[in-house]
Amino acid sequence: MSSSAVLARPEDPDLPEVYTTVESEVRSYCRSWPTTMATAEGSWITDTSGNRYLDFFAGAGALNYGHNNPNLKTALIDYLAGNMIVHSLDMATVAKTAFLQTFEQLILRPRGLDYKVQFPGPTGANAVEAALKLARKVTGRESIINFTNAFHGMTLGALSVTGNSMKRAGAGIPLVHATPMPYDNYFGGITEDFHWFERVLDDLGGGLNHPAAVIVETVQGEGGLNVARIAWLQALAELCRRRDILLIVDDVQMGCGRTGPFFSFEEAGIVPDIVTLSKSISGYGLPMALTLFRHDLDVWSPGEHNGTFRGHNPAFVTATRALETYWQNATFAEETVTKGRHIRERLEKIAAATPGVSARGRGMAQGLKFEETSRAAAICRVAFERGLLMETSGPSDEVVKLLPPLTTSEDDLDAGLGILAESVAAAHI
Amino acid sequence: MSSSAVLARPEDPDLPEVYTTVESEVRSYCRSWPTTMATAEGSWITDTSGNRYLDFFAGAGALNYGHNNPNLKTALIDYLAGNMIVHSLDMATVAKTAFLQTFEQLILRPRGLDYKVQFPGPTGANAVEAALKLARKVTGRESIINFTNAFHGMTLGALSVTGNSMKRAGAGIPLVHATPMPYDNYFGGITEDFHWFERVLDDLGGGLNHPAAVIVETVQGEGGLNVARIAWLQALAELCRRRDILLIVDDVQMGCGRTGPFFSFEEAGIVPDIVTLSKSISGYGLPMALTLFRHDLDVWSPGEHNGTFRGHNPAFVTATRALETYWQNATFAEETVTKGRHIRERLEKIAAATPGVSARGRGMAQGLKFEETSRAAAICRVAFERGLLMETSGPSDEVVKLLPPLTTSEDDLDAGLGILAESVAAAHI
Amino acid sequence: MSSSAVLARPEDPDLPEVYTTVESEVRSYCRSWPTTMATAEGSWITDTSGNRYLDFFAGAGALNYGHNNPNLKTALIDYLAGNMIVHSLDMATVAKTAFLQTFEQLILRPRGLDYKVQFPGPTGANAVEAALKLARKVTGRESIINFTNAFHGMTLGALSVTGNSMKRAGAGIPLVHATPMPYDNYFGGITEDFHWFERVLDDLGGGLNHPAAVIVETVQGEGGLNVARIAWLQALAELCRRRDILLIVDDVQMGCGRTGPFFSFEEAGIVPDIVTLSKSISGYGLPMALTLFRHDLDVWSPGEHNGTFRGHNPAFVTATRALETYWQNATFAEETVTKGRHIRERLEKIAAATPGVSARGRGMAQGLKFEETSRAAAICRVAFERGLLMETSGPSDEVVKLLPPLTTSEDDLDAGLGILAESVAAAHI
Amino acid sequence: MSSSAVLARPEDPDLPEVYTTVESEVRSYCRSWPTTMATAEGSWITDTSGNRYLDFFAGAGALNYGHNNPNLKTALIDYLAGNMIVHSLDMATVAKTAFLQTFEQLILRPRGLDYKVQFPGPTGANAVEAALKLARKVTGRESIINFTNAFHGMTLGALSVTGNSMKRAGAGIPLVHATPMPYDNYFGGITEDFHWFERVLDDLGGGLNHPAAVIVETVQGEGGLNVARIAWLQALAELCRRRDILLIVDDVQMGCGRTGPFFSFEEAGIVPDIVTLSKSISGYGLPMALTLFRHDLDVWSPGEHNGTFRGHNPAFVTATRALETYWQNATFAEETVTKGRHIRERLEKIAAATPGVSARGRGMAQGLKFEETSRAAAICRVAFERGLLMETSGPSDEVVKLLPPLTTSEDDLDAGLGILAESVAAAHI
Repeated sequence: MSSSAVLARPEDPDLPEVYTTVESEVRSYCRSWPTTMATAEGSWITDTSGNRYLDFFAGAGALNYGHNNPNLKTALIDYLAGNMIVHSLDMATVAKTAFLQTFEQLILRPRGLDYKVQFPGPTGANAVEAALKLARKVTGRESIINFTNAFHGMTLGALSVTGNSMKRAGAGIPLVHATPMPYDNYFGGITEDFHWFERVLDDLGGGLNHPAAVIVETVQGEGGLNVARIAWLQALAELCRRRDILLIVDDVQMGCGRTGPFFSFEEAGIVPDIVTLSKSISGYGLPMALTLFRHDLDVWSPGEHNGTFRGHNPAFVTATRALETYWQNATFAEETVTKGRHIRERLEKIAAATPGVSARGRGMAQGLKFEETSRAAAICRVAFERGLLMETSGPSDEVVKLLPPLTTSEDDLDAGLGILAESVAAAHI
Repeated sequence: MSSSAVLARPEDPDLPEVYTTVESEVRSYCRSWPTTMATAEGSWITDTSGNRYLDFFAGAGALNYGHNNPNLKTALIDYLAGNMIVHSLDMATVAKTAFLQTFEQLILRPRGLDYKVQFPGPTGANAVEAALKLARKVTGRESIINFTNAFHGMTLGALSVTGNSMKRAGAGIPLVHATPMPYDNYFGGITEDFHWFERVLDDLGGGLNHPAAVIVETVQGEGGLNVARIAWLQALAELCRRRDILLIVDDVQMGCGRTGPFFSFEEAGIVPDIVTLSKSISGYGLPMALTLFRHDLDVWSPGEHNGTFRGHNPAFVTATRALETYWQNATFAEETVTKGRHIRERLEKIAAATPGVSARGRGMAQGLKFEETSRAAAICRVAFERGLLMETSGPSDEVVKLLPPLTTSEDDLDAGLGILAESVAAAHI
Repeated sequence: MSSSAVLARPEDPDLPEVYTTVESEVRSYCRSWPTTMATAEGSWITDTSGNRYLDFFAGAGALNYGHNNPNLKTALIDYLAGNMIVHSLDMATVAKTAFLQTFEQLILRPRGLDYKVQFPGPTGANAVEAALKLARKVTGRESIINFTNAFHGMTLGALSVTGNSMKRAGAGIPLVHATPMPYDNYFGGITEDFHWFERVLDDLGGGLNHPAAVIVETVQGEGGLNVARIAWLQALAELCRRRDILLIVDDVQMGCGRTGPFFSFEEAGIVPDIVTLSKSISGYGLPMALTLFRHDLDVWSPGEHNGTFRGHNPAFVTATRALETYWQNATFAEETVTKGRHIRERLEKIAAATPGVSARGRGMAQGLKFEETSRAAAICRVAFERGLLMETSGPSDEVVKLLPPLTTSEDDLDAGLGILAESVAAAHI
Repeated sequence: MSSSAVLARPEDPDLPEVYTTVESEVRSYCRSWPTTMATAEGSWITDTSGNRYLDFFAGAGALNYGHNNPNLKTALIDYLAGNMIVHSLDMATVAKTAFLQTFEQLILRPRGLDYKVQFPGPTGANAVEAALKLARKVTGRESIINFTNAFHGMTLGALSVTGNSMKRAGAGIPLVHATPMPYDNYFGGITEDFHWFERVLDDLGGGLNHPAAVIVETVQGEGGLNVARIAWLQALAELCRRRDILLIVDDVQMGCGRTGPFFSFEEAGIVPDIVTLSKSISGYGLPMALTLFRHDLDVWSPGEHNGTFRGHNPAFVTATRALETYWQNATFAEETVTKGRHIRERLEKIAAATPGVSARGRGMAQGLKFEETSRAAAICRVAFERGLLMETSGPSDEVVKLLPPLTTSEDDLDAGLGILAESVAAAHI
């Protein structure tokens, strides 16, 4: 959510004083939702006044299995209560062994993915930083291709491949070594998609430094729920293959089942060279991230990339339990697709009934785009007052983004979509 | 710990297969200590075979209050069991309010520190990235001064101010916008400390881009337990003040009481413009970090720096409980100083008895430096076999570094120091 | 001319030994034309064996008025013989005063151009470096937009906005702070020209650092005689104006009448913010360059950009005489346009008669592009043996480029075009 | 000369209007010496009013053989009058052959220097840019070590290794990939010279990117006539050799006999890997430059570095004649040393008689340094009014720099030194 949407809000009238006197001005969500959250279960959050909120935000995609998922909670509390080791950097631990074995058995092997697993630190940005380092080390090249409206994180390496101009400006130094290319449908269908990228790659006089890698999201969540077509992703993978460019799929937000399958790229049948995962990988909102890559790319020296919190065992425990609970078979993925289709139908109806509105998204990452950009934030404010949490996205905050927990019941989905429809109508008046 | 020390080890003979077949070659500690850790309490870890290890490593400084500290554990499990909200980005939550209030009341106010608090993401590198961004934004300058043998993290911004050549090379792009200056005693007392830095700052032809900030550790833990003298830190602070350069103290490893006082710079009586904290701030090994800065530097726009895991409530809960338990008064800090003095005396005795060895450190960050650099790693291996965990540090891994939990009993300290003394003797033969 | 075309040649068999034993391998033209040049007059060069060559290369555009132009020669020798000052940095001199007055009177004033004149050093690259510095200083931004297949020079700043991959690689450091955009007709008419550039500029999430300036050639000589349409240039100027981006026209090769008018952009009716001139500005092949810019952009501090050879008085003398001789009225420009049209007609005939060949260019910068790229170099070799000097250009050296002196007589033009036609036919067999 | 010294002057009252209305504000020398120069012979310049000036500036070192040296003039006019080719890029020409042969025979061979010769373009900055490119290409590294108060030119690559902060700021982008080290005697003898550089090179944690090359001037002319001791240069060469770092000596100002021998590094008995020459290499103030390097470093591809004016034949002609006239034997070098010694003695006397003044320099690059920095510019202004041209140098313009033509007669030297002495006295009052 950008500052512009946020700044229109009154100044934190309902929060304890410490948020204005001690916390930095950089805070944002507590401005949009100025109330103190207390407890949470599944798709619901309750504040200190007892107000309940249906959560269609889900930790920006970090809570695909809902808040305090009971299966995961049991495993987590048992682990902690048993004085099992919590912090271990990259030592071997019981919890880490279990996670690696389960991830290999339930995720990698069934999909035929010959990936090595790196624990790059606990955030998506750590995973992206490690991915970029590795791509540069393997190829000996510096330049990375990113896409318009990409979002990959706030650390300097991750920020350099991020599109948002406000966040880029925060770097305070020129962000270089990355060149943006148009994402799918960037020109609204007027021109072929890879024209510019392919042409400039082939041209010895094009002036593009030869890239080490392309980094791409299959659906740009922060960028405005821009969905890359399957054919575009396939063409991109093929283009990278032909020209010896590594393909990095950043699946931090769209992975872990958000679009249906565990990896968002599965539907396209492509196999990226490097994949980043974070957000919902722990399943419980605990910090954790992975960088995955083909065995032959594993050229790291021991300790060449490290970090104090790359061995967060409580997260390994909940991650393992989440895989066991939801990814033993295809059921969960299928349910997500079905729910996503349902959401989309409801959104299409709203869009059809409202001028200047269109539906967009894939799986359970869906939203509404408003031609009159300021309406998106207005609708989110109205919805909050009616007990529904949603945020905006897109370069001008023109999209209302829905990321409900994948475990949200159909009734709750309908309830939330009902509030959304009312809010659209209310904000329209 | 660098790769050189690590590579001398046999290849993970005692670990489950998944560590070699699935985890990346980047793994390091599981090579030095090739056994699977199971449980941990206080200063002790037990592996799956029932072997117990006295932990003088303490999560590289992330476990100042020991493993599974019972006070903190109770608070944590209660929080989780009560379905209190776990993941919240930067919404207001009960746990966050309590942390902010407690931190302000027990840490900032008594020390007269007028700092704003930013939650920059859960790792020390996040805290450093935010600090550098802010310093650049405030000053409108790009260049940062770092010090020889500094360590600040693995993300691109943090890495650019880190000294270690192997880790720097991992970046894959030239790391620029930072210029290293000699740390205190870099020339072994032959030359005055600030000669080069002051001279080049004053010289209009010196060729140094005018810096936005200096980033410094009061004791360089990863860099080999290099200790800056109090007078040097004071002179550095004064130099920054006179020349309008922001002073960032990276207290990620040396803060939270490691050297005695909560902030390691307190003894010098200086007030940095920006401070980074992480590692032991949660007190339980849970990912958490803070960036602190003077009120007038709080020029952030809302959301200008963000991150999915900046609202890790379990960490806020244990952090609050840790502050309440250990930082209500000066007792804990004084005990740490006393213990640190005791450790140092024992180390001085070992050093006196062993040619080519010297003791170094401050508070409970102490160690032995070996002229014959390879001996440090050899001693750590021998000590591991005798049940003591310690790691090496320094550019050539020439220092045996002791970071025991601050809560370690005197008996355990003596037991560990006894193993160390035996290991030094054994490795010497 | 790229290395590929050059390397196919036998190793300098006909040159004095010193070229292989002492001169660096970087030498290039003496490989293509392995003979020692002695004298030159107008459009003709004579080698030490008495062979005469018709020069359709003209010092890569530095000899628009021919070799040893007698009008200019007289002025030059008089100046030297009179012990008039030769080297003066940026002191005031008689020759410099005359040049500034004449340039203002004959070039700037009649065209209504309110430009300041900088003497940035004697080469086109100096002029480009000064232009980029000034654009960055005025705007406070770093990023420059250049175009595919641009050529602006070999110094680090000029190289960063140049497209050729071989020459870029020579930098040895990543060339950053410049982003290439598609030049006119880059997609062969399939897509609208400014689609990508405008779209990414308008997009707050596009990831493009906001540019200080656009640098463009109206005809890309080195890039393969790519001609920007008048409408495209006008649209580019308008786009820069609307978005507060400075427009730099690099007229180093296409200025000084090469396309007809003194400045190549006159035909488009646009007024760039900054203009670079070099090559033929001295009129005699003597090193000289100018950077011109709007009065209000003249924010330089005295001496902020300097250089030992920015006051090359012999070049001022010939430059002044050249302006007086050729630019008192429109005649010379009109003759150039007429001759250019004639050349083009002949080239179109050759192209019509030869499969896979097309004519391209503007004014007296004309050429033939070959689908079978290697034929261009072959034709130049054949032509050389028949006494005609021409070079190739374009990213794959696929274009035979004709840059005859503008003063070449119609008979000589026809003679040269005849040799070209024969050479095309001969190389075709 | 920096802007500060210049800005104190009244605004060009005595110059033709065109200097203020048309020439850019960047002009500098015409501000210090506000008169129009007309003719020049040897060490004397005459302005349009008939005033004569003794030139102890000599084109900032570009006129070591004086203005319009008659030997060189004859050769030059003969060449031009004979319609010999003037502009030839890097074709073989009669003039170029003669220069290469003469340079090899009179300069390289007698000194046992196995250098290849590159014509990198006509300016010192071109020579430096080529040297840096080559060093990076050969080593595959990016970083360059330069020295405090170095001056190497104004193009982006040359500027990045230049110390002056005002000129660096003109770049408009952060200048990176170069790290300044203290020049000889930077600390006034308090600390050993290579302490910092060697220590940080040897330290795996020093944070210095491993350098491709060191670039150094043996005497820093623009930097304030800082003289490196012979032993320091030898130690630097040895340090580079031991650590596999290329040594580039920038002899643009101090070469061609300025300090006595042809190359300024001869006295130290060192052999740099790469050498740059320009300024006085043509001998007549005509733009010309050379980059010299060991045969085995000649890894250039043909045309990888090029430039329109790298074949400036009139400069080759005067350069050849200058070598033949002055460098057939050791006489000229010896005379320069003798004259330099004489100058120095006179300066020492002035210094001895004036508080806060010291003499400095080597060969015929000599000067006076003033503790009260503003006095240097004041003295130059007084001297100008008395008919002596000298400029200031040093980061604060605190040095009066004398670079008389090496051919200046002893009488003229004494006359100039007399004016200097009077000016010092006059400015002191």
